[in-house]
Amino acid sequence: MALAANVDSAAQVRAGGHALPAPYLLFLGDTVEAGFAKTAFGLRDWAGERCIGEHSLPTAQVSTGLPQLTPMDAAARGAKALVIGVANQGGVIPPSWLPALVDALEAGLDIVAGMHARLADIPVLRETAARLGRNLFDLRVPPPGLPIASGHKRTGRRLLTVGTDCALGKKYTALAIARGLAARGIDATFRASGQTGIMIAGAGIAIDAVVADFAAGAAELLSPDAAADHLDVIEGQGSLFHPAYAPVSLALLHGSQPDLFVVCHQPGRTAILGHAHYPVPSIEAVIEQTVMAGKLTNPAIRCAGISLNTTGLTDEEASAVITETSGRLGLPAADPIRGGHAFEQLLDACL
Amino acid sequence: MALAANVDSAAQVRAGGHALPAPYLLFLGDTVEAGFAKTAFGLRDWAGERCIGEHSLPTAQVSTGLPQLTPMDAAARGAKALVIGVANQGGVIPPSWLPALVDALEAGLDIVAGMHARLADIPVLRETAARLGRNLFDLRVPPPGLPIASGHKRTGRRLLTVGTDCALGKKYTALAIARGLAARGIDATFRASGQTGIMIAGAGIAIDAVVADFAAGAAELLSPDAAADHLDVIEGQGSLFHPAYAPVSLALLHGSQPDLFVVCHQPGRTAILGHAHYPVPSIEAVIEQTVMAGKLTNPAIRCAGISLNTTGLTDEEASAVITETSGRLGLPAADPIRGGHAFEQLLDACL
Repeated sequence: MALAANVDSAAQVRAGGHALPAPYLLFLGDTVEAGFAKTAFGLRDWAGERCIGEHSLPTAQVSTGLPQLTPMDAAARGAKALVIGVANQGGVIPPSWLPALVDALEAGLDIVAGMHARLADIPVLRETAARLGRNLFDLRVPPPGLPIASGHKRTGRRLLTVGTDCALGKKYTALAIARGLAARGIDATFRASGQTGIMIAGAGIAIDAVVADFAAGAAELLSPDAAADHLDVIEGQGSLFHPAYAPVSLALLHGSQPDLFVVCHQPGRTAILGHAHYPVPSIEAVIEQTVMAGKLTNPAIRCAGISLNTTGLTDEEASAVITETSGRLGLPAADPIRGGHAFEQLLDACL
Repeated sequence: MALAANVDSAAQVRAGGHALPAPYLLFLGDTVEAGFAKTAFGLRDWAGERCIGEHSLPTAQVSTGLPQLTPMDAAARGAKALVIGVANQGGVIPPSWLPALVDALEAGLDIVAGMHARLADIPVLRETAARLGRNLFDLRVPPPGLPIASGHKRTGRRLLTVGTDCALGKKYTALAIARGLAARGIDATFRASGQTGIMIAGAGIAIDAVVADFAAGAAELLSPDAAADHLDVIEGQGSLFHPAYAPVSLALLHGSQPDLFVVCHQPGRTAILGHAHYPVPSIEAVIEQTVMAGKLTNPAIRCAGISLNTTGLTDEEASAVITETSGRLGLPAADPIRGGHAFEQLLDACL
């Protein structure tokens, strides 16, 4: 799989002109809800060769399963950077994390973050890094000079992952589809729209960090003109049914101009993450709204299939919900993490 | 009409802690398309007492009808600030404007701008202003510390103006409705979501300048909890059918949680401004999409009526299109600028 090998220069990862230092020590903070640790899980699963351990505060209740290491131990094993692998509402860096981050700098590690709050804006981190000669990488600083969207059709084909909520598998699904198609010899490229994807792919734009007027334009830049048979598999963000993040989802939908979309859903999730008073919409509602909004920039948009996150279900339960969903909607459905025949059928529908 | 008198402090106009200096000299640059000069027209019509003239480059083809004055002449007549009254695609300040802006500083005027590009980022302006002790006001610097949207219902009632395109009367309509209801003794407040509205109202947030993740949250902040019978009349932005700005429109729709919306349309406009390959949608399509998206945060959302921008039509033509539109949709329709009985009926529907 070519991981964003031909993203143009303006979309290069914003990392101070440097490639990200690796291997990583994944920092989990004091996170108690797995949904907020998707960065750490994504790096473990898709860039595992660059992750040598995790570090968390005593009150954390989430683990990637990687060895628990202090920054000092990680540095001794060769780690070059502590990567903040968790997010929280609003993307802030709480004061409770700062001692651990300073420890990492003292231990010889750089720090990589993809949160809205910038490492370089926190005096103790900026000053400690300057004193020790360490680097702070803020991946969510958007590229300069982003255009507003033109709405012009681009060459090549595009697939976007969309969701019934955030944090339920849009990045995983895009990575799995790009990898699965590449394994069949298809010219497919994963395009990263969020900080974890950028860490995995080495390029991309964090769309949710872009000023709203330019967000659709940034999404256009993310998947440039390509060969007619090339497929960009674009990581979606949020959900059109999320009371805070729907504008980001719409910017990706309009700017990506997808020919195909895959709806990502977690069976059993009933409430929007962090917004308990908002129910998770039906897959049918997401298909309807995605087609209705997406046809503005691509009248041929259609749903290729459904990606189900069956984490926590038994094989039998997962198989049952996949079969039921596929039959109900008349579309392929699969859990890309489980793979199998159902996933091969979903890949067929992406061609 | 109480013009945003009780906006909370975080939403105060970002003007370096100063009230904007007035009266204004309106700068039109080299604009050749009236649609890009909506800031100047809005100030003339709604803050006319603070506008003493206009200044434009020789190639301009747009005029507000105010006296053409050099910065020197304007300063002699008491002007305190040159206000950039035009916008262009992407919100840049072209080099061709800089001599006139420097002239204004030399003549003793401050400069007020609401573009994405910041005056203070242009060295010749920053240095000239510093040398002469002038102030540069960038109104589109968002307030610090914006939250993500909570989605929680707020007290009081809200009306949002939405559009079939940008630059066709959403601000005018909101101002006219707020003014018309206030004349009836209704407790109504105009809420500004763009730079011109902020100049008129003295407070507000330029939603399109907010980072996408926080845009709906900013819209929530713009119309805070209010008395049960209070009506916030919120200035809309863009259109859900605009290939670049729809995310801004959606953020305002979700964050405003409007009980009512008024669709603004310009009869005869066939293409989206600046995007000739995109047709202007039907009013019916805008109603359908606004209800479909808006019911996420306010299930009771409904269309109160239609505001038609009949600029350039005769009285007979305007009356005919207003009557036809109202009859076709079964909703009040009016041109707020023309007023009359039709507009009073539209106001009735906003109660």
